[in-house]
Amino acid sequence: MKTIFVSGTAGSGKSLLSSKLHEYYTKNGAFAAVLNLDPGVENLAYTCDVDVRDYVDYVSIMQQYDLGPNGAMVMANDLIASKIDEIQNDVNKVNPDYLIVDTPGQIELFAYRSSGRFIIENLTSEEKTSIFLFDGVLINTPVNFVSIALLATSIRLRLNLPTINVLTKSDLIGDKLKDILQWSTNLKTLENAIAKETDGDTYALTTNILRGLNLGGFAQGLIPISNVTGDGFVNLEGAMSRILNLGEEVED
Amino acid sequence: MKTIFVSGTAGSGKSLLSSKLHEYYTKNGAFAAVLNLDPGVENLAYTCDVDVRDYVDYVSIMQQYDLGPNGAMVMANDLIASKIDEIQNDVNKVNPDYLIVDTPGQIELFAYRSSGRFIIENLTSEEKTSIFLFDGVLINTPVNFVSIALLATSIRLRLNLPTINVLTKSDLIGDKLKDILQWSTNLKTLENAIAKETDGDTYALTTNILRGLNLGGFAQGLIPISNVTGDGFVNLEGAMSRILNLGEEVED
Repeated sequence: MKTIFVSGTAGSGKSLLSSKLHEYYTKNGAFAAVLNLDPGVENLAYTCDVDVRDYVDYVSIMQQYDLGPNGAMVMANDLIASKIDEIQNDVNKVNPDYLIVDTPGQIELFAYRSSGRFIIENLTSEEKTSIFLFDGVLINTPVNFVSIALLATSIRLRLNLPTINVLTKSDLIGDKLKDILQWSTNLKTLENAIAKETDGDTYALTTNILRGLNLGGFAQGLIPISNVTGDGFVNLEGAMSRILNLGEEVED
Repeated sequence: MKTIFVSGTAGSGKSLLSSKLHEYYTKNGAFAAVLNLDPGVENLAYTCDVDVRDYVDYVSIMQQYDLGPNGAMVMANDLIASKIDEIQNDVNKVNPDYLIVDTPGQIELFAYRSSGRFIIENLTSEEKTSIFLFDGVLINTPVNFVSIALLATSIRLRLNLPTINVLTKSDLIGDKLKDILQWSTNLKTLENAIAKETDGDTYALTTNILRGLNLGGFAQGLIPISNVTGDGFVNLEGAMSRILNLGEEVED
């Protein structure tokens, strides 16, 4: 089994991508399954094979501990880690080639508290990778691009997994897509765009950080996809294969 | 009026710090008020002077739009922006010297969606500053320190405010406090600590980023505080004064 963790900010398209990846693998003859790790989600775009909501009940937590929505959400996310044995058992019963893990809606509860890293470290799998979603609609300025790139890097350090950076909603952002891809591949272009937009302090901070990120190999390789049109899925699958299958493509 | 936005990850101590800052200013003869911007909080450590829950009702949103807890939380946070006139009116009625703004529990809903920046830009105030909380308990390794520093920088770029970085829970972390303060002031110490903890790839990525952050003046000036013992408040107030009052201290 190979495991793919799908993460990104709330609304960036995690659940939809999980569903589309499942479709993509199935169509290409691989056995894929989806694990939902979000205890607070109401409706999912797919039928999950394993569902954390079977073990962690958000509404009961609110009632039982007399918590408000915030407190219950934090507690529900923290509780995921304590359910690792049940999750592992259910995953083993399904035993897919590819396990796609749809992570909680609010990424900070998963990434910056202990449960996310615990699940990632303790779920038994041959290979593991992470897909981080850059929400295309959020990246409306070069400084916002750098901000999300910093968040992605922060989460990559927390989760400690090989990471593929994906730009979602490529069908919604028109000409901006070309700009964003230039920013992600050409440091000079990005610096010029930032210079036009910002004052001296922000420019100095941003460009210095950028040089660090770029030296770390970060800015390269952002893959644009659309969950709606399916654009970019072949590239995404290729990037996953290089990590998960040591270069072998999914059979088709 | 000067405005102080208190932000940080869920559980980092935002509400408690807001309450303690209010106490601190009051004790020193200034007129401070607290604005709660979190629509999903149940119990607060303080009496708010202005409360977004008076305009945005999380439970009604769940029922009215048939949303689960995640969806309702996203929508409630997005709705904050539409209530700017009501919030501004109520703030004007109170008219404090210092307005302390306790931001939503999950920082990503505030910082990476549009409402946070909108509120920050549109709330009328003489001066504005942001305090970002590094949760002392989360920073248990040098890589986790860098991860939170990246998050802080990301949010600083999104919110576009002069920012004071504060380390909370200094009373809970014992000897670790000394390590963290060394990491935050001495790049070489931090790089050595990371080298001991990580493999080659993470080390290369982390140290390159660090150099960028450091050039951007980031790593300096982390102020340790304890909301419990009150340690560090004098330093925090000094840092705020330098931004808000152009160097004048609060009268006492």
